[in-house]
Order: sequence, then structure tokens, then C-alpha cells
Amino acid sequence: MSSRPSKDLITVPNPEPGRDYEIVCETDEFTCLCPVTGQPDFATVRVTYVPDRLLVELKSLKMYLWSFRDEGAFHEAVTNSVLDDLVAALSPRRMTVETVWKVRGGILTTVTAAHP
Amino acid sequence: MSSRPSKDLITVPNPEPGRDYEIVCETDEFTCLCPVTGQPDFATVRVTYVPDRLLVELKSLKMYLWSFRDEGAFHEAVTNSVLDDLVAALSPRRMTVETVWKVRGGILTTVTAAHP
Amino acid sequence: MSSRPSKDLITVPNPEPGRDYEIVCETDEFTCLCPVTGQPDFATVRVTYVPDRLLVELKSLKMYLWSFRDEGAFHEAVTNSVLDDLVAALSPRRMTVETVWKVRGGILTTVTAAHP
Amino acid sequence: MSSRPSKDLITVPNPEPGRDYEIVCETDEFTCLCPVTGQPDFATVRVTYVPDRLLVELKSLKMYLWSFRDEGAFHEAVTNSVLDDLVAALSPRRMTVETVWKVRGGILTTVTAAHP
Amino acid sequence: MSSRPSKDLITVPNPEPGRDYEIVCETDEFTCLCPVTGQPDFATVRVTYVPDRLLVELKSLKMYLWSFRDEGAFHEAVTNSVLDDLVAALSPRRMTVETVWKVRGGILTTVTAAHP
Amino acid sequence: MSSRPSKDLITVPNPEPGRDYEIVCETDEFTCLCPVTGQPDFATVRVTYVPDRLLVELKSLKMYLWSFRDEGAFHEAVTNSVLDDLVAALSPRRMTVETVWKVRGGILTTVTAAHP
Amino acid sequence: MSSRPSKDLITVPNPEPGRDYEIVCETDEFTCLCPVTGQPDFATVRVTYVPDRLLVELKSLKMYLWSFRDEGAFHEAVTNSVLDDLVAALSPRRMTVETVWKVRGGILTTVTAAHP
Amino acid sequence: MSSRPSKDLITVPNPEPGRDYEIVCETDEFTCLCPVTGQPDFATVRVTYVPDRLLVELKSLKMYLWSFRDEGAFHEAVTNSVLDDLVAALSPRRMTVETVWKVRGGILTTVTAAHP
Amino acid sequence: MSSRPSKDLITVPNPEPGRDYEIVCETDEFTCLCPVTGQPDFATVRVTYVPDRLLVELKSLKMYLWSFRDEGAFHEAVTNSVLDDLVAALSPRRMTVETVWKVRGGILTTVTAAHP
Amino acid sequence: MSSRPSKDLITVPNPEPGRDYEIVCETDEFTCLCPVTGQPDFATVRVTYVPDRLLVELKSLKMYLWSFRDEGAFHEAVTNSVLDDLVAALSPRRMTVETVWKVRGGILTTVTAAHP
Repeated sequence: MSSRPSKDLITVPNPEPGRDYEIVCETDEFTCLCPVTGQPDFATVRVTYVPDRLLVELKSLKMYLWSFRDEGAFHEAVTNSVLDDLVAALSPRRMTVETVWKVRGGILTTVTAAHP
Repeated sequence: MSSRPSKDLITVPNPEPGRDYEIVCETDEFTCLCPVTGQPDFATVRVTYVPDRLLVELKSLKMYLWSFRDEGAFHEAVTNSVLDDLVAALSPRRMTVETVWKVRGGILTTVTAAHP
Repeated sequence: MSSRPSKDLITVPNPEPGRDYEIVCETDEFTCLCPVTGQPDFATVRVTYVPDRLLVELKSLKMYLWSFRDEGAFHEAVTNSVLDDLVAALSPRRMTVETVWKVRGGILTTVTAAHP
Repeated sequence: MSSRPSKDLITVPNPEPGRDYEIVCETDEFTCLCPVTGQPDFATVRVTYVPDRLLVELKSLKMYLWSFRDEGAFHEAVTNSVLDDLVAALSPRRMTVETVWKVRGGILTTVTAAHP
Repeated sequence: MSSRPSKDLITVPNPEPGRDYEIVCETDEFTCLCPVTGQPDFATVRVTYVPDRLLVELKSLKMYLWSFRDEGAFHEAVTNSVLDDLVAALSPRRMTVETVWKVRGGILTTVTAAHP
Repeated sequence: MSSRPSKDLITVPNPEPGRDYEIVCETDEFTCLCPVTGQPDFATVRVTYVPDRLLVELKSLKMYLWSFRDEGAFHEAVTNSVLDDLVAALSPRRMTVETVWKVRGGILTTVTAAHP
Repeated sequence: MSSRPSKDLITVPNPEPGRDYEIVCETDEFTCLCPVTGQPDFATVRVTYVPDRLLVELKSLKMYLWSFRDEGAFHEAVTNSVLDDLVAALSPRRMTVETVWKVRGGILTTVTAAHP
Repeated sequence: MSSRPSKDLITVPNPEPGRDYEIVCETDEFTCLCPVTGQPDFATVRVTYVPDRLLVELKSLKMYLWSFRDEGAFHEAVTNSVLDDLVAALSPRRMTVETVWKVRGGILTTVTAAHP
Repeated sequence: MSSRPSKDLITVPNPEPGRDYEIVCETDEFTCLCPVTGQPDFATVRVTYVPDRLLVELKSLKMYLWSFRDEGAFHEAVTNSVLDDLVAALSPRRMTVETVWKVRGGILTTVTAAHP
Repeated sequence: MSSRPSKDLITVPNPEPGRDYEIVCETDEFTCLCPVTGQPDFATVRVTYVPDRLLVELKSLKMYLWSFRDEGAFHEAVTNSVLDDLVAALSPRRMTVETVWKVRGGILTTVTAAHP
């Protein structure tokens, strides 16, 4: 199985669709580019969701997050995009995406978006 | 008393069935195998419950968790299985099982399932 | 004033019975014996309560907790006993007893009981 | 300006009486005497309040807390006294006083009182 | 682009006005002057908001916070001013400003104000 | 195998006598009695040694430490006794015993003794 | 590339043999069996070395540590074995192996062995 | 036994004068007065020594430290005085006194003096 | 002034060449690619040096570290390369480069190289 | 006594010149301006010294550090200047000045200079 950055999110069936339960996937290895300066930004990304019929496959989530490495992305926009893409792929019962960005200009920024 | 991995959960009577009170059992010594790669996975497991008429005997809980050592188990499935097995054995008033898995592919995963 | 282990809890009048306020007494110096193996167990004990007309006198609480040193006591039973004894002595408006036990068999156990 | 222990609390006008907002003042430099043994006790004191028309002036709060240095005071009584004195001086919309006392007899005590 | 302290807050359009989501901007590089003694004060400032149609541009927020460097400002007043200025510029759906001030006279002060 | 407090230290052969290597055994479950007041004392005990031909068997070390439970023992004396007993049983190339005692009278005490 | 537990350590050439520099590889995912009870033990393993002409390939180190999963191994013996095997494979200029074992019988054990 | 502040340090015989071993006594309950402003100062005091023929009795050390409560004392002077008094009373083989003072004027001060 | 990844290290004169003093520059925003899998790696990089006649200009150090973003680099090789490049540019009296890499295969790796 | 920023360091006699002992003064309230951009920089400053005949008066040290508030100063230069000024004023037996600067461009910088 090749490993390349990809926006394609692979899903697997939820083994327990009869129960509401929560999954948290968190990585401190997210990087993209600042759309203004072109310089690298770094963040921790935390995805919390209650699955319906589908789970996100872990390796595909890694490839998906990798796909932002060479893209310019504002903090607020990328957080909402990750949420939109994951909601489109998984139709979760509920989902939250939280991003915590490294200090820029002395300011630490956190963005949190939720569905629904 | 022999000590071997076992799915048999031993119960003891609740000494205070007239009161709703909470018990938390937590171990950072849980390991199973990844069903895809066959490689070891490691997790912390936390069981929180309000007993009805039965408590889980601590040594039998240890044997039960040990029984996953040579089994392939997805993170989400094993969390729900532990919950199902403990609910079947104890009929608790309420129970939560939380698993926190070591980093794989740069991603830390937590799964939390509750009854009812 | 002699200091010996004792189940007798001494009380003092609440200086402010007209107000609901909260007192927390916590010690990490609690020890009793395992009723199965006879070996020592160790725990942190935290008592949280809203007094009515009586407070527990601190030195008598220390003697009371000391009285378990040579007694066999299951984690769940001792937690409920401490709660029952303190409720009987103080008739508090509300009270919680929480015990956090040292690791046994790789498992850390916490028990929390509340009145009413 | 002289600096001496004093029960007199000085107030200043609230610059924003049209808004409910919260102020926390906390010190780990509080000491009084045990009324039973005469020996020093030490505590952290945290005052949290929503002001109405008055704020407590910070230096006067420091002098006020200093005034307990040579007084005998039970943990529960002093906490309620500080609350009463500050409520009398400030008429706050709401206030909480929390005291965390150094270990005595192996027991750490916390007292929390609130108005109204 | 010049960098100078400025009360002018620059805004950028919210890329996702259809969703309520939260942004936190936090810095531990805030300093102003004590209006009584003229000596420097230092604080951590945390701004939490749900944007409506506008976000605050990060560099302009930095310049704005810098503008207090040579101003005398009471803890409570400056916290409410920052809130008022940001609310005026952004018309956020909701906003909280929290300031945590370095110890003065042995007392640590925190002020938290919210809109609406 | 019975488990009772015992001063008898059991040894096992060092599997690697040709190499100087270090073993640390640490427990926070040590308790004895104050020889003056008869009240319980609690400590963390840390034994660090380079074995020669013998290792201490872990369960026997546990029984040994348990044997102090009902004995009066000054902090300094018990630390030196543990060192003397272990040196007599193991003849280690070098050994250090460190005890960290719970706060008494507001004072935390640590005692460290080494051989040779 | 298959992934199975294996005692075979794969090496790669040191890219900078002209300089003494230090490499630390640490994992908290080590498990073996207690040779007395047959029950699982868990440890953190830290390998620190100055390479000569060879480095250990990271995936092969993982397979090597995995090979202990079904073996009985005393704490002291396994630490020395890991050191011996790595020294035999790499001929490092110097190497230290440190293992930190989960609490058994209330006792935490650490073993540290070094070459030469 | 009365408990009052006292400069008299009581000693007890060292149970193991044939061995150099180290004792650390530490308290975070030390307070004195600023000789300039008369206001209270607070410090943590740590005494580390290798005893010769005498140990300091713990309760007398507590009374001794209490004796500074109403005395004016500069940080540097009080540290050296404590060292001088303890050296005079105990004639230790070596001793260090370290004081860590609460923040004044935004500055945290630590003073460390040693004998010989 | 443009900001692009660059291997060119800019230097500035040491303002105090007559004194040996130490500078530490540390970032947790370093990323490169694994030469085997092509996937991103992440590390914290810490450079410690005693300058001779030259200091590294901070922005140029940032551009230099950025230049590894699209390069394949083994942990050990990249650490030595950073050291070699900085030594070539600065001729420091002494320098250490330490890299701490995110967990791969359950193993955390640290590499430390020094000149001379 | 007026309080204004000042380069004048006031000294007081060392009360114990016959003994080598160490004083540490540390503040996290230091700010100056970047000489390149004119923007504020923030640092923690730690001064460690063994006095000879003079101590630095604490309030004057505060005024001295305040004097940098409106000055442009490179990290390395300001650290050496503080050391030079304090050495000139105090002629200490030895002194170290350490500055830890807030993150700029993702890089945290520490500078440490010592006399002699």
C-alpha cells in the first residue's frame, strides 16, 4: 500500500452502530503554509466524533492530514475544512475538530469547530 | 489459585447495594495485536461503574484483560467488547469503558463507550 | 491528651450553621489489610462535606482513620463504612468519601460514595 | 503611606458596573495561629467575586489578610469571617472564599464558603 | 508593512459565517503601567470568541495589545476596555477576555469579562 | 507460599556477576510507628545497589519492609537499619538507601545512607 | 516487508564515524512474561549509545524488542541480555540499557547496565 | 510539653556516628518580617546536613524556625543566622541552608549558605 | 526582506568576543521527510554554542531549518549535517546539536552531536 | 522614595563576608525592544552570584531591569551588559546572568554569561 498525501478519506464500517460512543484522534504532527508569508505553520489537531455507520481508517486520516503540508491555509479556514471533509466522508452523529497553533507574534491561537 | 488469561469474569456481592456509588479500575498494562499487521498494540484501560448487586473481582479482571494479549482487535471493537462482557457479567447500574492507545502513525487514539 | 486509634469521632459545633459551605479533609496516610491475603493496602482518603450543626474534630478524624490499620477491609466496603460512620457522627447536609488505592495486580482502583 | 495590619477594607468604584464580570485575588502568604495549640497555621486564600458598585483595593486586602497573623482562628471560622467581612465591605453580586491549609496530622484541609 | 503600537483593530472576513465556532488568542507578552505607582505591570491575556462576520487579524491584535505598553491601566479597567474595543470592532456572537496578572503584594489577580 | 512480615531477606544469584550494573527498588508503601508518640509514620523507600553475587528477591524485600509496620523507629535509625540488613544479606558492591517521610510539624524529612 | 518478532538485529552504516555522538532509542511498549508466575510484565526500555561503524536499524530494533513478548525473563537478566545482544550486533563505542518496570508488590524496579 | 517559639535547639544522639549519611529537613512554613517595611516575608527553608555526634530534634527545629515570626530579618542575614545557629548546636560534618523567598517587586530570591 | 527556505546561514558579529558565554536556540517546528518511506518526520532541534567572533542571525537560522522541509534525511545524518553547517558558518568555540524525534514504531529517538 | 527606571544600582554591605554563599534573583517581568523591528521582546532574567563585600539592593535591581523597557537591545548584548553593570557595581566573587527569551520565529533563545 503506497503512502502519499491524499484528500481521499477511507472509511471502515462501525462495529457497534447500535451504541453512541466517542472516538478521539489526535496528532501533533500537522503542518501547512501561511497563505500570507508562505512560511510553515505547525499545529496539533484533535478530531472527536461519535460515529454513525462509518469510522475513518487511521492511515487514511494520516494521509489526509499530510495533504495540507504544501497548501496555504488560514487557521480558521483549515479547521473548518477538516471538519467539512470528515463530516462529508463519515456522516458522524456529531464531530468536533480542534486545532492548537504554535506561537506567532507572541500569540497562541486555538480554533474549535463542531458539527452539528 | 492458578493465574492464566481467561474470559471468565468472577463476581463478588456488592457490600452496599442500597447506595449508588462509583468504582474505577484502571490499568496501563493492556496489550493486544493489530488485526491488520499482527503487531502489538498497547493501551491504558479505564473501567468506571456503579454496581448493582455484583462487583468484579480484581484478580479476575486482570486475567480477563490479559486474555486479549494474543488476540487481534481493532481499537473501537475491543473497547465495545470489554464493555459488553463486563455489562453481561455484572449488570451494573451504569458503566463506562475508556481506552487510550499508544501513538500509531503519529496519531493518538482514545475510545470511550458507555452503558446504558 | 492520649493519641490512640479509635472509632470514636469527636465533633465540634459548626461556627456558621446558617450557611452551606464545604470542607475537604484529605490524607495520603491511610493503610489497612487485605482481607484475602492479610497484606497491607494503602490509600488516599478524601472526605468532602457540607456541615449541618457539627464539624469533625481533625485529630479525632486522624485517630479514626488510624483505627483501620490492623483491620481487614475490602476497598468498596471500607469506603462505604467511612461514609456511614461519618454520616452517623455528623449528620452532614451532604458528604462524599473517595478512596484511591495503590496499584495491585497492575490495577489502580478508586471508590467514591456519597450521602445522600 | 503606612503599611500595618488592619481590618479596614478600602474600596474603589467599579469602573464597569453595567457588566457582570469576575475578579479572583489569591495569595499563598496567609498565616494565623491555631486557637488550641497557639502554633502557626498557613494557608492559601482565594477570593472570587463579581463586583457590584465597589472593588476591594489590593493593598488594603493585603493589610486585611495580614491582620490575622497574630489571631487564633479555626479553619472553618476564619474562612467564613473573611467572607463576611468582604461581603459587608463590598456588597458584591456574588463571592466565594476558598482556603487551603498546610498539612496537620497528615491531613490537608480545604474550606470553601460562598455568598449568597 | 510598518509595525507600531496602534488601537486600530484590523478585521478579515469570517470564512465560515454559517457555523458557530470558537477562536482563542492568548499571549503572555502583555505589559502596561500601574496608574498609581507608574511601575510596569505584566499579564497574560486570553481572548475567546465566536465570530459573526469578522475575525480579528492576528498582527493587528498584536499591535493593539502593544498599545497599552505606555498607558496607565487598572487591572479591572483594562480587561473591560479590551473587551469593549474588540466587541466594537468585531461584533462577535460572544466573547470573553481573561487577564492573569503577575503577583503584586503577594497577591495574584485574575479578571474575566464576557459579552454579551 | 505464605506472605507474612519477616526480617528474613531471600537472595537469588546475580545472573551477570561479571558486570557492574545498578538496580533500584522503590516503594511508597512503607509505614512504621513513631517511637515517641506511637503514631504511624509513612515513607517512600528507595534502595539502589550494584550487586556482587546476590540479588534480593523482590517478594522477600516486600515482606522485609512490611516487618517495620508495628515497630517504633526513628527516621535516621530505620534508614541505617535497612541499609545494614541489606548489606549483610547481599554484600553488594555498593548500596544507597533513601527514605522520604511524610510531613510532620510542617517539616518534610529525607534521610540518605550509603555503603561503603 | 514482513513484520514479525525476531532476535535478528539489522544494522546500517554510521554516516559520521569520525565523530563521537550519542543516540537514544526509548519505548514504553516492552512486555515479557514473569518466569515465576507466567504473568505479563511491562517495562520502558531506553538504549543509549555512541556508535562506532554501525547503527541499529529502527524497525529491526522494534522487532527485536517484540521477540521478548512470549519469553519468561527476570528483570535483571533481560536488561543484561538486551545489552549483550546490541553490543554483539553493533560493537558500539559505549552503550547503556535502562529498564523501568511497572509496579509489582508495591515495588517499582529499575535496572541499568552499561558497556564497557 | 509546651510549644512556644524558641531559639533553643534540642539535640539527640546520632544513632550511626560511624557512617557519613545525609539528612534533609524542609518546610514551606517559614515567615519573618521585612526589616525595612515591617511587612511579612515568607520562605521555604531547606536544611541539609551530615551529622557528627548529634541530630537536631524535629520539634525543636520547628520551634526554632517559629522564633523568627516576629523578627525583622534580611534574606541574606537570616539564611546565614540559621546556618550559624545549627552549626553551633550540632557541629555537623557539613551543612547547607537554602531559603527560597516569595516574590517581592516581581523578583524571586534564593539564598544558599554552606558549612564548612 | 523575502523569507524562503535557504541553506545560507547569515552571521552577525559577536558583541562580546572577550568572554566565553553560551547561547541556546531551540525550536519544536522542524520537519523533514523519511528517506525510506517519503513520509514526514518531526523533531525538536536544540543548538547550544559558545560563539567566537560570529553569532547566527536568528531569522537565517529559521530559514536554514526550513530548508530541510522537502529533503529526505535520516535522524543521525541530519543531526550531524546541522552541526557541520553551523560549525562551518560560525566557527564556534564549542557547539552541540540535539534532535528529539516524534515516536515512530513506538520508539522515540534522540540524537546528540557535539563539536569539537 | 520615588520609583523610576534607573541604571544606578544601589548596594548594601554583605552581612557575612567571611563566607562564600550564593544568592539568586530571578524575574519573569523583563521587557526591552528589538533593535531591528522596534517591537517588544520579553525575557526571564536570572542573576546568580557569590557576594564579596556588597549585595545588590532588591528595589534598585528592579529599577535597573526596568531601565531597559524603552531601549533596543539584542539578546546577546543585553545579557552581557547586565552582567557587566552588576559586576562593576558589586565586584562579586563570581556571577552568572541567564536570560530566557519568548519565542520569536518559532525559536526560543537562552543566553548565559558568567564572571569571571
